[in-house]
Amino acid sequence: MELREIGEFGLIAEIAGDLGDKDGELVVGIGDDAAVIKSRPDLYTVVSSDAFVEDVHFRLEYFSFFDLGWRLAAANLSDISAMGGRPKHLLVNLALPRGTTVEQVKELYRGLRAIAEKFAVTVVGGDTVSSPGKLFLSATVLGEVAPNDLKLRSGAKPEEGIFITGFPGLAQVGLSVLTKSAPRRSFYVQSVARHLRPVPRVSEVRHLLKKFTTVGAMIDISDGLASELHHFCRQSGVGALIDENGIPLHPELTAASAEFGGSALQFALTGGEDFEILFTAAPGDKLAMQTSLQESFGLPLSQIGITTNQPGEIHIRNNQGDLVVLPNTGFDHFADPND
Amino acid sequence: MELREIGEFGLIAEIAGDLGDKDGELVVGIGDDAAVIKSRPDLYTVVSSDAFVEDVHFRLEYFSFFDLGWRLAAANLSDISAMGGRPKHLLVNLALPRGTTVEQVKELYRGLRAIAEKFAVTVVGGDTVSSPGKLFLSATVLGEVAPNDLKLRSGAKPEEGIFITGFPGLAQVGLSVLTKSAPRRSFYVQSVARHLRPVPRVSEVRHLLKKFTTVGAMIDISDGLASELHHFCRQSGVGALIDENGIPLHPELTAASAEFGGSALQFALTGGEDFEILFTAAPGDKLAMQTSLQESFGLPLSQIGITTNQPGEIHIRNNQGDLVVLPNTGFDHFADPND
Repeated sequence: MELREIGEFGLIAEIAGDLGDKDGELVVGIGDDAAVIKSRPDLYTVVSSDAFVEDVHFRLEYFSFFDLGWRLAAANLSDISAMGGRPKHLLVNLALPRGTTVEQVKELYRGLRAIAEKFAVTVVGGDTVSSPGKLFLSATVLGEVAPNDLKLRSGAKPEEGIFITGFPGLAQVGLSVLTKSAPRRSFYVQSVARHLRPVPRVSEVRHLLKKFTTVGAMIDISDGLASELHHFCRQSGVGALIDENGIPLHPELTAASAEFGGSALQFALTGGEDFEILFTAAPGDKLAMQTSLQESFGLPLSQIGITTNQPGEIHIRNNQGDLVVLPNTGFDHFADPND
Repeated sequence: MELREIGEFGLIAEIAGDLGDKDGELVVGIGDDAAVIKSRPDLYTVVSSDAFVEDVHFRLEYFSFFDLGWRLAAANLSDISAMGGRPKHLLVNLALPRGTTVEQVKELYRGLRAIAEKFAVTVVGGDTVSSPGKLFLSATVLGEVAPNDLKLRSGAKPEEGIFITGFPGLAQVGLSVLTKSAPRRSFYVQSVARHLRPVPRVSEVRHLLKKFTTVGAMIDISDGLASELHHFCRQSGVGALIDENGIPLHPELTAASAEFGGSALQFALTGGEDFEILFTAAPGDKLAMQTSLQESFGLPLSQIGITTNQPGEIHIRNNQGDLVVLPNTGFDHFADPND
């Protein structure tokens, strides 16, 4: 059987089933944004690793080496943050095609360091090898989390509010602008920045967890809002009722849907590579959380729905008032594009 | 400037110089087998990451997917062991070409798990993505080390004995057998095993450190004996005097030098991909260490020379009694093969 037949998540299930967990120190293994190891009783180690591949995740026509380093680190930092953790140390593996220059590699490290320093993360090592073809990047980030701050995909309960930071879908708009002929390219500043130099919500999550105790499940939406919503509902054993009206649509996204075709809602629900945070919390905390994130970070927070006690039932009430099933659509690495 | 002009180690120096170390928790950063983080006063975290690339490090004509998983994990475990540490958790990133089957990936994970379980290491996560070309593997291993057990490349002092476990160069012989037409292939059983399924010296190092307190610098010889010797002499600020007679030559290596050409000594000094351990210790511990490793593991230990107080002077006394400079020759990822 080829991978495209079972897809990325099918493969994870096959592998995770084989591996088991024979280690008493492992708090969270395969299947969340990061693994969690009980290295000491009062502070857990959180670790995550991500690959970033030329012509799969990016093209060098629109990614500078500085941006590559930045983006590689950002994705990894986001994984730690989405667990409630604080990223601390980063390792980077590079497989570089022949012809790569020293200056390019140094630019990549400058990008890495620029975002790492923003969050007091230190680059501690890695491996640099040659590649017979394309450029391959891989990074691992280690962080720490206090047991009380640890937020899992499985942490949602019924009747919680479902919240999203910022504007989902912007990074996907950025990608469209970068890859298609966009006459008004200078208009899409935020979307392009979200794609090339995303800033993970590390500080915002720290702030939230410090001030609000009702936060349940938490996940970043790197695979797209709809897909990640399905993940945490399945892992928490809850359902969800989403309100189309609640989904925040950035003006650049609305403009893009007019310019490139497709609905703005579709962009927001299925666009990948965003590092906004999807989480559940007590509906009563909504206003206080919104005010707090706005005042401290200028970051909008939207409630997009509520969790329900009907596992597997994930619906969206559209603007016509109809209740429809929300499809589980996101980016699957091994899906056949012709399926 | 292209990378081949400054080489892998030149690049590491450039990058490490740029990064600095602004983190009080970092005991060892870039430039050793692994990074060391002071996660708690009595137990440090050791972490290392390695890339393993099709047609650079291996070819699928002679590597099964099981062996790939095994070999990937082995290299990482060896890095932790060479610091004096105990490997604990493993993360694996795979970039898989289209057409890769589920069974192949499961075989790779079976190989990973086979060696991981041997050393009570748990696979805790990673990322699986598609590759536009070749197969790319990357792994990160986390381990722990008691401060007293931590052994650095910089830990050698003058007048220490220089020791090597097992038989250097065997993995390189294995590679020659696998890639060239070898009429007596079944003869080279150990060399081929060393290349495809190396067993890192995790248990042997634990044993050594528990019983002998004089161990100074320690390093694995994945880049080749001569090259790694230069590394630890430079990082320790010592010189070395090597005795050709002391370098152990395995019968398969002697046979290979006759069959494939080249000197057996050259194989032993420059062959890469071995996970034997090169270390310094009090010359007076030689016999006790040899007896102990032989009795507990059936592992030969050889003294190949002594460290001196002349930094930069690394000489070998050959079998004719002449003292010659030992060249710093190992595998450099970016070196031009025509230079």
